Amino acid sequence: MIIVVKPGANEAQVNEIIDVLEKNELQAHVSDGAERKIIGVIGDKSRLTPGSLEVLAGVEKIVPIMESYKLASRQFRPEGTSFNVKDVTIGGNELVMMAGPCAVESEEQVEAVASKMVACGVKVLRGGAYKPRTSPYAFQGLEKEGLKILRRVADRYGLLVISEITSENDIEYASNYLDIIQIGARNAQNFRLLSAVGKSGIPCMLKRGIAETIDEWLGSAEYIMSEGNYHIMMCERGIRTFETATRSTLDISAVPVLKGKTHLPIIVDPSHAAGKAQYVEPLALAAIAAGADGLIIEVHPDPKHARSDAAQQLTPDAYRELAERVKDMAAIVKRSYPKTAQF
Amino acid sequence: MIIVVKPGANEAQVNEIIDVLEKNELQAHVSDGAERKIIGVIGDKSRLTPGSLEVLAGVEKIVPIMESYKLASRQFRPEGTSFNVKDVTIGGNELVMMAGPCAVESEEQVEAVASKMVACGVKVLRGGAYKPRTSPYAFQGLEKEGLKILRRVADRYGLLVISEITSENDIEYASNYLDIIQIGARNAQNFRLLSAVGKSGIPCMLKRGIAETIDEWLGSAEYIMSEGNYHIMMCERGIRTFETATRSTLDISAVPVLKGKTHLPIIVDPSHAAGKAQYVEPLALAAIAAGADGLIIEVHPDPKHARSDAAQQLTPDAYRELAERVKDMAAIVKRSYPKTAQF
Amino acid sequence: MIIVVKPGANEAQVNEIIDVLEKNELQAHVSDGAERKIIGVIGDKSRLTPGSLEVLAGVEKIVPIMESYKLASRQFRPEGTSFNVKDVTIGGNELVMMAGPCAVESEEQVEAVASKMVACGVKVLRGGAYKPRTSPYAFQGLEKEGLKILRRVADRYGLLVISEITSENDIEYASNYLDIIQIGARNAQNFRLLSAVGKSGIPCMLKRGIAETIDEWLGSAEYIMSEGNYHIMMCERGIRTFETATRSTLDISAVPVLKGKTHLPIIVDPSHAAGKAQYVEPLALAAIAAGADGLIIEVHPDPKHARSDAAQQLTPDAYRELAERVKDMAAIVKRSYPKTAQF
Amino acid sequence: MIIVVKPGANEAQVNEIIDVLEKNELQAHVSDGAERKIIGVIGDKSRLTPGSLEVLAGVEKIVPIMESYKLASRQFRPEGTSFNVKDVTIGGNELVMMAGPCAVESEEQVEAVASKMVACGVKVLRGGAYKPRTSPYAFQGLEKEGLKILRRVADRYGLLVISEITSENDIEYASNYLDIIQIGARNAQNFRLLSAVGKSGIPCMLKRGIAETIDEWLGSAEYIMSEGNYHIMMCERGIRTFETATRSTLDISAVPVLKGKTHLPIIVDPSHAAGKAQYVEPLALAAIAAGADGLIIEVHPDPKHARSDAAQQLTPDAYRELAERVKDMAAIVKRSYPKTAQF
Repeated sequence: MIIVVKPGANEAQVNEIIDVLEKNELQAHVSDGAERKIIGVIGDKSRLTPGSLEVLAGVEKIVPIMESYKLASRQFRPEGTSFNVKDVTIGGNELVMMAGPCAVESEEQVEAVASKMVACGVKVLRGGAYKPRTSPYAFQGLEKEGLKILRRVADRYGLLVISEITSENDIEYASNYLDIIQIGARNAQNFRLLSAVGKSGIPCMLKRGIAETIDEWLGSAEYIMSEGNYHIMMCERGIRTFETATRSTLDISAVPVLKGKTHLPIIVDPSHAAGKAQYVEPLALAAIAAGADGLIIEVHPDPKHARSDAAQQLTPDAYRELAERVKDMAAIVKRSYPKTAQF
Repeated sequence: MIIVVKPGANEAQVNEIIDVLEKNELQAHVSDGAERKIIGVIGDKSRLTPGSLEVLAGVEKIVPIMESYKLASRQFRPEGTSFNVKDVTIGGNELVMMAGPCAVESEEQVEAVASKMVACGVKVLRGGAYKPRTSPYAFQGLEKEGLKILRRVADRYGLLVISEITSENDIEYASNYLDIIQIGARNAQNFRLLSAVGKSGIPCMLKRGIAETIDEWLGSAEYIMSEGNYHIMMCERGIRTFETATRSTLDISAVPVLKGKTHLPIIVDPSHAAGKAQYVEPLALAAIAAGADGLIIEVHPDPKHARSDAAQQLTPDAYRELAERVKDMAAIVKRSYPKTAQF
Repeated sequence: MIIVVKPGANEAQVNEIIDVLEKNELQAHVSDGAERKIIGVIGDKSRLTPGSLEVLAGVEKIVPIMESYKLASRQFRPEGTSFNVKDVTIGGNELVMMAGPCAVESEEQVEAVASKMVACGVKVLRGGAYKPRTSPYAFQGLEKEGLKILRRVADRYGLLVISEITSENDIEYASNYLDIIQIGARNAQNFRLLSAVGKSGIPCMLKRGIAETIDEWLGSAEYIMSEGNYHIMMCERGIRTFETATRSTLDISAVPVLKGKTHLPIIVDPSHAAGKAQYVEPLALAAIAAGADGLIIEVHPDPKHARSDAAQQLTPDAYRELAERVKDMAAIVKRSYPKTAQF
Repeated sequence: MIIVVKPGANEAQVNEIIDVLEKNELQAHVSDGAERKIIGVIGDKSRLTPGSLEVLAGVEKIVPIMESYKLASRQFRPEGTSFNVKDVTIGGNELVMMAGPCAVESEEQVEAVASKMVACGVKVLRGGAYKPRTSPYAFQGLEKEGLKILRRVADRYGLLVISEITSENDIEYASNYLDIIQIGARNAQNFRLLSAVGKSGIPCMLKRGIAETIDEWLGSAEYIMSEGNYHIMMCERGIRTFETATRSTLDISAVPVLKGKTHLPIIVDPSHAAGKAQYVEPLALAAIAAGADGLIIEVHPDPKHARSDAAQQLTPDAYRELAERVKDMAAIVKRSYPKTAQF
């Protein structure tokens, strides 16, 4: 941490700063510049309250040097993290393909998707059981029944289940039915939920909050990891900007930026970013080209009659075409594609 | 709702659209323009899934005409809402002044603030007991003990208590100690929490999510209202933009915009928007000038030693100066100031 | 400037950094922290190319300490700037009121506004002669004829003229007719225009670019000042964010932030920020409450028949009401209101 | 255009709306909905001033249906645009590779880049002669001398020259030296410059403004096209958002969105979006995967000693690696790569 001293600060004011630092067992290294005096602070800054220095009369501003996350940092595990969920490796050389409907509507619907996804190399079945919706009057999901449907269908095809959980109270029940908990964008800083998922030890996919910086997002991951759960995927799903041509703006740069900052695997969700089916394939390909470890994509057997987000769901046939192109692209970026794919 | 038909769509495609509408018991009014055919849709659109029309081959885009909230709409109660919490009227002509420390640290600390606030016209004591923090290693609040301290101190001075709740599981316990639940920016779309607060019937102050549009924010209010709890204040606390000179960008326009769109009272939190104590007073005055119904401001007896957000907390003396100027301004905008103020 | 050294950088890499600094006649102060080595850099950093240090193998990141503007900085003139344009003082205790139509349409139209504005305390007549419009097919302004109309009408009422110039080639001609050049949001970083206005010595009002940070905006002012023209007003007119309820988001915090960072006077344009007439008054009052030195507001004798931005222009009567309330508010914030006002 | 009538508007108010429309020779189609009356407007809306309807007492809001650009619209030329600049085809099946230093510093420097670029398939040499810089004290480019250097070097290697022009006054001179004019992000809505480039007939590459929506950007293209110059490339270079991990946020979705909205070719500039050399390759690959027609990338023989933007420039060797991977990727997305590439 660097403290920039106010121009014209007197000796007493500078001493007050040093005094506060020393009381917190921190060392102060003072440098006199032509235009500004600065104080380098060395030691365990977690003793200090954010803001407690800014209020001192002699302080112009504080410049943090270190990130506030540790376990999520690339330095914690420079070689990168990969982990197994049952027999599926997440974060390995092989891309992870996740697909399924936006919302679980019926067993027939999920079956109609899953039965076609296996041959596309999909290993994780997605589907919303608890749906966070902007309006209380919109379809809120089948809840518990939705989870049961996902499990039954997934078991028929040897797939893993991923589904969003929106309350700490649902984790125990849901743990009977799913393999990976999804934390959605709206709960990305619901720290109580994050801690509870951390304690559960269940692998999770952490979506980026709609206006979360990459550093804050890693702070959210740190909440889970600090409870001992290291099995986390980061999922970029678009951020909110001034542009409205797409539902959100896919921050494709987040992929290489995360690769530098964290050891955790990185998944991209082009469906929610795009909001429109015709943009999903180009964004999916871009994600793989940029280095993503996997994709999660919405597929519905009959998008016209979907009960939520109809406009962004692909048909199984459109998904198959996309998957074939992803497979071709995997070779270019030196990644392998699941061998279960039959093309 | 208006459907804009794709240029060049054939008759079968147009008929397909009309067919879907009629199956959902909606009427279609077709208009042929020089450049585009459009279809006006009349009836109860809640039958339709968002997106189910966009996927039809003949549809270029859908233009919503109505907001998705009803109870929160100004039309629902054109005269505006005011309600009493104990003997304090929220949303009346008299401004509501709320103040207190960012986080409850000790009974002495809260006492030191509250004892000076009463004479400034403050009627609601704020203080964080459960603190959502970006880093899991930062001070997380005194939790239950914090609520008890707030209650004891508030009772000594005849004040109401407002405090943030971050989990549906804490509502019942907290209801013994607080008068108004605060829902924070990070939980603004934690719909499970919103519904639970709705069911509790406890008055609440709903902060705007950091990237929530005004319409989405009213959708969050609708979640609470649809459970039967109409005692809600909206709290503008700054939105996330590209500008970093302040912690958030106070959207001052949200005050008049909300006055037009909703009947709910509007509070402004200049402390979190500013992030720095020296900007709090100008923003507080601007909020009153723009028509806010009240203010919630952070005050700490000794900001230098605060355990959170030290830089943005006012001293009791600085708060008193601010309050005196707010009182003067109240007269200009034809609002009354609490008579308990001793200046 | 602070250089944060990469964790694990070897001695040769650190020496390379120091070497580059010393070749540029800069001093390097190395501090060893528990977690990071940092290098404080002292001397004239303008010798360094931005980015030339980042590429060194041992550098993790560069943290600037000083702003890149000097003349625009509050430190350059701590007492603040005020200057006279003819007999009107800008940046003094008295608020500066500027008003007039969005676009000059005819002499009758400008006359109809100006004749009523004088008694409201307005001293500067605004009107667009060169109109930058998003579409090339929209009304582009009366250009030279517009400037002549403004001058003739202003002279009848003893008013100053402010009008937007969009090309360096128009400055010489325009200088015959206007007193203050307005630089619009879309040209806020048109550095050729800024330099030319600087060389002209004509007082100017510099609008903030739609996505310009406050520091970049002061950089734009520095372009004008570095050519010797110090007669600049900064004009906050709203920034682009995700919120679309208003045309732009008025960054009200920019007023106190600028008061701290610069000595230049600060004007607020609530008309363009709001985009709707009904929000103009609350935003105008908020601006004065927050400390603005003046207002520029669009007024049209018959907004229904305006040729541009009809929705945001006030009628002369609505403007008069606004002005009366601004006058009342001036007293609260210890500012005087022009004595020419007849109310 | 759709007019949504205010709830409760009386007959006189509705008639006033119809009256205004009919005076402008527009037809009004009134539909009565359960909750709102709407009026569909048919005819040539360019007769109406934006905003002139909003001010009528009976109007709640106006919903535009059509874009304001015509020539730039995909409908104008559904098959897409390709054009030749000398012997280089832009917008054809073959990708267009543009590369060169951020700023022209000397003939040796440009030579050192160009000599290595030809064998990488580069056909257009870039280099900044007029540099728009945030600070007036930063290096502003070699100006005229810079253009001459570019031309001499380009001619030695049979390359085209692209360079940024920042004033209409430089076009005539520059036309002697360059083949393609670049319009930079800061001048994206400098309509005087756009019109002048339109009149010049010189091919141009139009960068997106830092906070320009895609529709506004196409409006900027329309300014050029409406003067008769149809040889335009759109260049996505990142937009401003709250995220600061990269210099700008590359809006990768803009590529497929533009493919739908316009017939103009689309180039991506990963260098300015990233701001850091290590992110350039993943973003370049993502751009090609998403469907871009070409890339413009900064390459410097010795980034450590560059006079501007050192951190984001690639070495010639790093560029060659990138180009090899782009060539591999071209095959996946069914594009050809320039045959001049010697790998």
